[in-house]
Amino acid sequence: MKQGWECLESKKIFEAGDGRTVFLELYQDRVRTPNGNILTYTKYHASDVVIVVPFIDSQRVLMIKQFRYPVGKVLLEFPAGHVDNDEEPLDAAKRELEEETGYRARKLDYLYRYHPSVGRTKQSVHVFRATGLAKKTVTRHDSGEQISMKTVTIRQLRHLIVKRKVESAGTLIAYLLCCAMKINPRKRR
Amino acid sequence: MKQGWECLESKKIFEAGDGRTVFLELYQDRVRTPNGNILTYTKYHASDVVIVVPFIDSQRVLMIKQFRYPVGKVLLEFPAGHVDNDEEPLDAAKRELEEETGYRARKLDYLYRYHPSVGRTKQSVHVFRATGLAKKTVTRHDSGEQISMKTVTIRQLRHLIVKRKVESAGTLIAYLLCCAMKINPRKRR
Repeated sequence: MKQGWECLESKKIFEAGDGRTVFLELYQDRVRTPNGNILTYTKYHASDVVIVVPFIDSQRVLMIKQFRYPVGKVLLEFPAGHVDNDEEPLDAAKRELEEETGYRARKLDYLYRYHPSVGRTKQSVHVFRATGLAKKTVTRHDSGEQISMKTVTIRQLRHLIVKRKVESAGTLIAYLLCCAMKINPRKRR
Repeated sequence: MKQGWECLESKKIFEAGDGRTVFLELYQDRVRTPNGNILTYTKYHASDVVIVVPFIDSQRVLMIKQFRYPVGKVLLEFPAGHVDNDEEPLDAAKRELEEETGYRARKLDYLYRYHPSVGRTKQSVHVFRATGLAKKTVTRHDSGEQISMKTVTIRQLRHLIVKRKVESAGTLIAYLLCCAMKINPRKRR
């Protein structure tokens, strides 16, 4: 199977961001597939995301509850946020953990990189495990963020998933990697 | 914490679809947060997605390899596709399984519903487990889809995740629910 698709034209339709991060850039591409079909493909670009699983000890993690406007409700999630332009995912993970929870981690392991929506965007989510937590600062939230913290045991989190109470893809995947599979850190980044 | 945000205005910026499904509709909303801030929020709407984990037997699943234009490479995934307008997720799961693999399932269990991107869209992904497979038809792919099938053992799939070779969020979550957690079907839909 010939794999590449040829991009004949890429037109930016829309962009929104705050200078530090790209919220969403929308593109319509004219594309030729290997069998010669010409089609229009709608895709978007957005800054990468980091998600951090902060372990208080081997059995307890720190989670946050926050209102998510697009889904219209409060969700239980791991701390997460955008990677700023020219920022490394590791630095973004440090920053977001501290901003959202007030904790710093002695150790941040880079576990995984995945794509949240492979049919629409090449955006990546980088998953980190944080251990050796120490309370450093008061939390600083971005404008509009309303966040409350919650300590959850791995067993409780498993139970919440069994009851379908965890609705965010990132939090499900972070649970898979850190708790269900106990995956080892990446050697290189 | 007062939770609701008030939408003052919602403006549709862009839409793309094929009549059967919404590829992407982009909105800019003017929103008042509970602390009185007014902000502009970019969100999008897209048709829901179904993802199906087809079990050949207790140890083997059917996967597909296909080129994903936004990420620019061939990914190993479970069969998936959009839910058509006015279609039930269960019917979409049946249809996509047959279209992409040529198999029908005697049993389709509805396992989970999650949101792929809670910061941007209320789009849902519905995860199904298919058992009792029988080859019925030749595959019918949508325009532009290039798909090859692959039989993978649960053990191989686990190994691929450990090696970070599985990059699609949906496939990671489907593995979590069907193989790592062996979650029970939902009683009601």
